[in-house]
Amino acid sequence: MAANTTPPAANGTSANGSSANHRFDPNFTQHVIDLMSPETLPRHREILTSLIKHMHDFCRDVELKQEEWVIGVNYVNSLGQAYKKNRNETWRVCDILGIESLVDEINHTVVTDDGRAPTSSAILGPFWSPETPFRDLGASVVQDMPKDGELTMFHGVVKDVDTGKGIPNAVFDMWQASTNGKYDVFDPENQTRHNLRGKFRTDRDGKFWFYCLKPTEYAIETTGPSATLLTMMHRHPYRPAHIHIMVTHPDYVGLTAQLYPRDDPYLETDTACAVKDDLILDFKPVENEPKGAVLDVEYDVRLISKKYKPDNTMLMENANQSKF
Amino acid sequence: MAANTTPPAANGTSANGSSANHRFDPNFTQHVIDLMSPETLPRHREILTSLIKHMHDFCRDVELKQEEWVIGVNYVNSLGQAYKKNRNETWRVCDILGIESLVDEINHTVVTDDGRAPTSSAILGPFWSPETPFRDLGASVVQDMPKDGELTMFHGVVKDVDTGKGIPNAVFDMWQASTNGKYDVFDPENQTRHNLRGKFRTDRDGKFWFYCLKPTEYAIETTGPSATLLTMMHRHPYRPAHIHIMVTHPDYVGLTAQLYPRDDPYLETDTACAVKDDLILDFKPVENEPKGAVLDVEYDVRLISKKYKPDNTMLMENANQSKF
Repeated sequence: MAANTTPPAANGTSANGSSANHRFDPNFTQHVIDLMSPETLPRHREILTSLIKHMHDFCRDVELKQEEWVIGVNYVNSLGQAYKKNRNETWRVCDILGIESLVDEINHTVVTDDGRAPTSSAILGPFWSPETPFRDLGASVVQDMPKDGELTMFHGVVKDVDTGKGIPNAVFDMWQASTNGKYDVFDPENQTRHNLRGKFRTDRDGKFWFYCLKPTEYAIETTGPSATLLTMMHRHPYRPAHIHIMVTHPDYVGLTAQLYPRDDPYLETDTACAVKDDLILDFKPVENEPKGAVLDVEYDVRLISKKYKPDNTMLMENANQSKF
Repeated sequence: MAANTTPPAANGTSANGSSANHRFDPNFTQHVIDLMSPETLPRHREILTSLIKHMHDFCRDVELKQEEWVIGVNYVNSLGQAYKKNRNETWRVCDILGIESLVDEINHTVVTDDGRAPTSSAILGPFWSPETPFRDLGASVVQDMPKDGELTMFHGVVKDVDTGKGIPNAVFDMWQASTNGKYDVFDPENQTRHNLRGKFRTDRDGKFWFYCLKPTEYAIETTGPSATLLTMMHRHPYRPAHIHIMVTHPDYVGLTAQLYPRDDPYLETDTACAVKDDLILDFKPVENEPKGAVLDVEYDVRLISKKYKPDNTMLMENANQSKF
């Protein structure tokens, strides 16, 4: 049990952080941690120890009132109660609090020996498809052209971040929502299957090029406990417009990212906290483009050799499918 | 958005705590916090700011893997999905992680001007009844005597922690489970209503005395996600034996606590982490007691004047009723 016979110091304040700096029983948190037996698996112990410390410090930092704690208990219960197919409120709450994006960064931060970073990673999202077809370089992913669509010539080079040289035979897989904010198979207006999706194989210089749309921003679901949290924070439900990419090559660490137009109004306030500076695209107006594109984007991808992260896997590809 | 164009420092380790000491984007957590608008209510901002900081630091401290995060999301969903009447898994998980007990301490730690502490508080639990009858001093709460029951003479003084003097007319409300671990209305063996419950009013010297049972330890529910957490930590599901008390007087801060026999095997490892040293009772054998008691307990309660905590309320009394 936690020692509590001697009265605690009555110094009142407890605003900042560490377990040591507050007026409550200084042994309690370690007591709870020590309840774990020596048989507890090391990774379980590591995760639960940190979780207990941080949850306790959180309660002490804000001097959580009992009625606030009860609200929190009820809120956590409401997340699981709202769960259904294609709707994962806990996942959304993690997005809103930046947790999915942070976990993504933690799992993908890797730099070369001299400190150069590959293209930043961003969350996969729920709409990647394992069945997207390969298309020829120069083809268009736009099978159903919406009236307000802006055809865009998208081109660039997949490069080795160490050497700066192009990587031949890399796979550049992309997918995007149409101008109504819907992805092909989730669109009640019935887009053609594989509309706005395509895989492209880089040429011998590492180059890729194809036609797509300038992407459109959209709002996440605006009901349920995740929406309540957004309202409490006075935040909007919008994600900035984005094009998803997944770039792979057997010798390189795979990259999953989202690319955002520089003129998007939600870059700074993305509801999923997933925007990074090096993932921003410049859509430049063009005229008399051979296939009628009105915009041009040049974007190079930097991949890092697997020698820097030999255990890289893309385990999330399946797990993520049940997100929304 | 979080700045990420300059490569992060490649210093590898990130084992301990603060947001500043890791190899990840140092601006990301503040970025998420700053998404809250100026209209956010101050208390919401305070709580969410601390929650975001601690959840982010937790993820960074353990370098949470994406598949571990998905397990966590699924676990949180399972808590709400297991919710039903008299079963609140999120509440239980908070007990197992020491959170309910900690919040209880945070909300009840108050000391006199010269640093003397009243009797420690402990969690109310789900079995308090607002309808418990007053009984005469010296009466027995044992209406149904179990075969293995040990009748106990329980007596003491309710004192002012400042003056040490007895407090007349304080209400000493107590409730306990029978030897089968069940409380009256929750017992399938049908205990008489109000069995093992009673309210006593202290005499003009602050004294109270009555007969009860030596309490018996019991296990919490051993199925569902909370039990999975206990198993992961290699912890047992037992609460130590305890007698619940709620002691009130109009001029004093109300006390809710649990009292534990010193010889209980689960004091150090209480599954709800609610034992405190000054809540431990010595049950002493007696012979030829007038009403046949075989044990005697003396326990004094120290209350603190409301002048030290004028806003004290006992809001939890109703909220707690739906716990298990």
